[in-house]
Amino acid sequence: MTPETTKTDNEDQVRHFIADLATAICAKDIEAIMSHYAPNAIIFNVKPPFQTIGAAPWRQTWVTSLAHFPDSFGIETRDPKVVASGDMALVHWLWHFTGMVDDNAATQTWLRDTVVCKKDQGRWQIVHEHCSVPFNPETGKAVVTPGP
Amino acid sequence: MTPETTKTDNEDQVRHFIADLATAICAKDIEAIMSHYAPNAIIFNVKPPFQTIGAAPWRQTWVTSLAHFPDSFGIETRDPKVVASGDMALVHWLWHFTGMVDDNAATQTWLRDTVVCKKDQGRWQIVHEHCSVPFNPETGKAVVTPGP
Repeated sequence: MTPETTKTDNEDQVRHFIADLATAICAKDIEAIMSHYAPNAIIFNVKPPFQTIGAAPWRQTWVTSLAHFPDSFGIETRDPKVVASGDMALVHWLWHFTGMVDDNAATQTWLRDTVVCKKDQGRWQIVHEHCSVPFNPETGKAVVTPGP
Repeated sequence: MTPETTKTDNEDQVRHFIADLATAICAKDIEAIMSHYAPNAIIFNVKPPFQTIGAAPWRQTWVTSLAHFPDSFGIETRDPKVVASGDMALVHWLWHFTGMVDDNAATQTWLRDTVVCKKDQGRWQIVHEHCSVPFNPETGKAVVTPGP
């Protein structure tokens, strides 16, 4: 971080960084998606396994998922929150896909996403992502829509 | 952060901070649990709702949960990872309760936990926590055990 880079600058950079990631996903651009992740990123994804260690297996997850996505779809987000300090930033938000075919539960639900990024030589990268839905312990089932 | 506080010092502090939180939970000590959370913390819990905004409703969640817990139980963790920089730190790990009665799915599963802390006047506090299990999109059910 240069002395001229303020907390607000970093928060703005991180907001753009996450918006760029959503754009890359909707473009089904695997290189652009993966450019957001540090090589040693650890991911807690909405689907099994419990954790994905490293960008290489995470790339494979995306390649497999994107093959099932339609040519055109969108991402709707709500309640974004950014906390940045120095070369580290937290972002969390709720989101869901729009325009998806309706035969895949994973693409029909609202999701919670938490991302932690670090800035190295002026470039932000995700070191950890945690994406999930809550689950109802009485039914063992996922809860797929947030409240108001 | 004082100049004498190194990255390793901060990582050690955060490890102790999270271990203290587990001790507080096992002691069913609501004041000690809540002392780990910033007043404006936002929580994505394993159970609904999608998000809990602020320490006050999060305290109520703990009060309600602890009432159902046995007098004595433990917490087993694995794969802890700490990343600290300046006054901010990320910790994530897998964990489950031990010694719980077996009538509550929420206390029988392995969980993934992500915590982001900030240090203010020498004191770490959680600003965001995300706790979840993966879910199987084919069944809509939670997946309750991690792989090897």
